[in-house]
Amino acid sequence: MITVTLPNKTYDVKIEMGLGRKIGTEIQQVWSKRKVIVITDEQVGDLYLHTTVSELQKADYDVITATVPVGEKSKSLKFVGEIIQTMADSGFTRGDGVIALGGGVVGDLSGTVASLYMRGIAFIQIATSMTAMVDSSVGGKTAVNLGKVKNIIGSFYQPDLVLIDPIFLNSLSERNLVEGYGEVVKCSALEGGDFFDLTGNINSVDDILANASELIERSVNFKANVVMKDEKESNLRRILNFGHTLGHAIELLADGKLMHGEAVAIGMVSICQCFEKTNVTSNDITQAIKKRLLAVGLPTESNLIGTPAFFDHLKNDKKNDHGTLNLVALKKIGQPVIVPTKLTEMPDFVSAVTVK
Amino acid sequence: MITVTLPNKTYDVKIEMGLGRKIGTEIQQVWSKRKVIVITDEQVGDLYLHTTVSELQKADYDVITATVPVGEKSKSLKFVGEIIQTMADSGFTRGDGVIALGGGVVGDLSGTVASLYMRGIAFIQIATSMTAMVDSSVGGKTAVNLGKVKNIIGSFYQPDLVLIDPIFLNSLSERNLVEGYGEVVKCSALEGGDFFDLTGNINSVDDILANASELIERSVNFKANVVMKDEKESNLRRILNFGHTLGHAIELLADGKLMHGEAVAIGMVSICQCFEKTNVTSNDITQAIKKRLLAVGLPTESNLIGTPAFFDHLKNDKKNDHGTLNLVALKKIGQPVIVPTKLTEMPDFVSAVTVK
Repeated sequence: MITVTLPNKTYDVKIEMGLGRKIGTEIQQVWSKRKVIVITDEQVGDLYLHTTVSELQKADYDVITATVPVGEKSKSLKFVGEIIQTMADSGFTRGDGVIALGGGVVGDLSGTVASLYMRGIAFIQIATSMTAMVDSSVGGKTAVNLGKVKNIIGSFYQPDLVLIDPIFLNSLSERNLVEGYGEVVKCSALEGGDFFDLTGNINSVDDILANASELIERSVNFKANVVMKDEKESNLRRILNFGHTLGHAIELLADGKLMHGEAVAIGMVSICQCFEKTNVTSNDITQAIKKRLLAVGLPTESNLIGTPAFFDHLKNDKKNDHGTLNLVALKKIGQPVIVPTKLTEMPDFVSAVTVK
Repeated sequence: MITVTLPNKTYDVKIEMGLGRKIGTEIQQVWSKRKVIVITDEQVGDLYLHTTVSELQKADYDVITATVPVGEKSKSLKFVGEIIQTMADSGFTRGDGVIALGGGVVGDLSGTVASLYMRGIAFIQIATSMTAMVDSSVGGKTAVNLGKVKNIIGSFYQPDLVLIDPIFLNSLSERNLVEGYGEVVKCSALEGGDFFDLTGNINSVDDILANASELIERSVNFKANVVMKDEKESNLRRILNFGHTLGHAIELLADGKLMHGEAVAIGMVSICQCFEKTNVTSNDITQAIKKRLLAVGLPTESNLIGTPAFFDHLKNDKKNDHGTLNLVALKKIGQPVIVPTKLTEMPDFVSAVTVK
């Protein structure tokens, strides 16, 4: 268990095999009897909604559900409005609660709903995807998209509890599992030490599953420590964007063909190549990261980087601060630095990215 | 000037004749050069948008504008989405700002936009209506409506500065001015002392205008003191809902025919009558409040109270906590108390309300 302690809130992240079968009793430890809405997507819902609802009912909660389509398109104001309408129609008050049952999309959407309903009601995340377990369920970032702009609408809103059962990983497709592992490699590169050694020993998808609990625990622990020092991303938290600036842009360009973690994998290797050119990062760092990604089949290059549309997306990035991007470079493994870089310099800068 | 000091934020509320003509230099004292969006409605925009924009441009801000139709219907997720899209298209970043130029509707909508854009960007309120000056611009409540449910979507999000120029009141219709004065009477009844004596001497609309600065200053000062003790309305702040529980319900039932402050005026007198029946409030208190409202032409009764649809609206009220409403009663002038009352008891309770 990892405890996240913030100025206005403290909550636990519980990581435990079999937690999914005792959700009701776990939630009883933080929530009194109340109405809850379980938000999920069609895929996760088919697998786990029935059990989750009956566990919650056994624990005496009054349960309703909302199921959205699978995929990024469900992170929209339209669904925020529809779910809030359902809650209002069911008489939800400030004392009730929202439970996210799913991956990153469901977590981000549910967090947005919880943060906005009557100016904020209680929220719990049950993370079912690797991405949600190691990254998005912890830290309190909520968001929906608008048109082509990712995560433009949202808030910082912390949950009361995060429940992670690594058994859920068994139902993920290999691609979904591996995608989430991209963020694990990121955390290990940012933290360094024996965490980076650990990812160095992961050579297959089976290795990810065999070491799932430890990989999740280490990633959450790293992220929680960063978030505890800088909840609102005014400074330190920016290092978590390692690989994300270039990654986000190609994720958008690929229009659904690249998953988030895949785009971040490409983004990490590419940004390292860029910083090799300016002598911030040495080639052995780039290679060490690339090796870990290739070992599980993650992509590490894309010819989308450097196209005109690519630079348009950089311009619209939330990390664009008046024409300057705060890029994250690795001076060494475990030593990230923020390098402010002008948008106008980016074409020259990313020309260092190599694609075979 | 009144300074609002909260755990995570401190900001000033400036009340000064002629402030509207030096908006640029006032804002320069809290904001560096940046992009700003001025959000207003068609009515206020016609009067003040041109001057406001040119003042801001003189102070070297890069200005865009968004104008919404007059009225409560503009407090919607639809407009939140449209304005955020405009900001994204104009390349707004986390370092830019939102300025509300208008009354309660524009302030609530703009605050919602500011709180959500990229998880929150800076926000300033220029209050042009009496309601906004004495109530909604201070305290950090933002909200939009969904269907028939008022303020169901929103957050607590504090501005960087509130600017109030009582000269703006001269362009209000008499009805709009008087409506806002309903909240002044509320504040004076909750605070008591010489503030309640002051409202006792307001016998006409001209009296409101002649004493505008003091009435606004006293109201803001009272509200700020409450909000500083309980920003998120966990306890004390609830007293500000005096007159609002019955008021909100009839405001919705009247479907636009009653303004917010008019409904609150009726709500205050009606709830006092109810608490007379249970010996919490004495009749001289009810009469003292009624006298102040009638003196400026505010309504004090409505036959909408007690209808079946009225009770439906009470059920959907944000203040409904699992079947209990936290009603605000006046034991004496200056001595509000919270009286939890079951929804099931409300039909009998409100039968005390008299309509001639």
